[in-house]
Amino acid sequence: MAKARRLVAIALRVAAAAAAGVAAIVMATSHETTTVFGMQVEAKFQYTPSLVFFVSANAIACAYSLLVLLVPPATSPAAKLVLVADAMIGMVLTGAVAAATAMSDLGKNGNSQARWLPICGQIPSFCDHVTGALACGFVAVVLHFIALLYSIYTMDG
Amino acid sequence: MAKARRLVAIALRVAAAAAAGVAAIVMATSHETTTVFGMQVEAKFQYTPSLVFFVSANAIACAYSLLVLLVPPATSPAAKLVLVADAMIGMVLTGAVAAATAMSDLGKNGNSQARWLPICGQIPSFCDHVTGALACGFVAVVLHFIALLYSIYTMDG
Repeated sequence: MAKARRLVAIALRVAAAAAAGVAAIVMATSHETTTVFGMQVEAKFQYTPSLVFFVSANAIACAYSLLVLLVPPATSPAAKLVLVADAMIGMVLTGAVAAATAMSDLGKNGNSQARWLPICGQIPSFCDHVTGALACGFVAVVLHFIALLYSIYTMDG
Repeated sequence: MAKARRLVAIALRVAAAAAAGVAAIVMATSHETTTVFGMQVEAKFQYTPSLVFFVSANAIACAYSLLVLLVPPATSPAAKLVLVADAMIGMVLTGAVAAATAMSDLGKNGNSQARWLPICGQIPSFCDHVTGALACGFVAVVLHFIALLYSIYTMDG
């Protein structure tokens, strides 16, 4: 029983780490150069603070999910600390995905009231990269949350 | 001892509810009409999906923090359910604050690479309202996280 629980916990953490790691890498490698009205335009994730936050948060979540595997399973004080860290990482990760999604939506649809034009028509490959990274980021949030639920479920039992 | 703990928990929840409630109200009442180049421009939170998300998430967090006071204190199964709900609300609230902050930053500073111009110069009162709401939202996130820590700390003890 204890062994089966440990295996489920390990599988969840590894899956969450993989999703977050892939999200960070796909976002970090997104890059496109295009020419608009004779002007060269370069699209990089570094130009948008929310996307930089996305890469950092996913990299941190990936490292955390792997490191937490080193913590011996559910003895009470350690289990509580892991729960606190899980909640914190979950909040930061969700914040990063939400901010990056807001920016991606703006890139796709613009905001006519603010006169911010959509730009994905000019940099489609960059936008596809960002969308792929966001999808991985969502998966990472869901897997992280399931791992958190599992820590709560297996606590003291 | 149990009574003192209960009082601290109630104080934290009420404070978190108040911060989230004020954040939602301040954001929801932000509104400004101005004239730019002879054109009437109206600024409303409803025009930006992230700000709508901010108002909804803060309203939900406010209602949740008050409702959770009705749950009898820390018997194990109920305490675990509250912890799960706390984590979920914490993630949604952080996501909302992060997305709204990303939009507010864009309104203030723009993004020259995407050719999105800052708009706060034209609608300063709207931007001040949004900044005030964001400050309350940050306080709500911190208070909610402290309440979550306190639930973990007082679990089974």
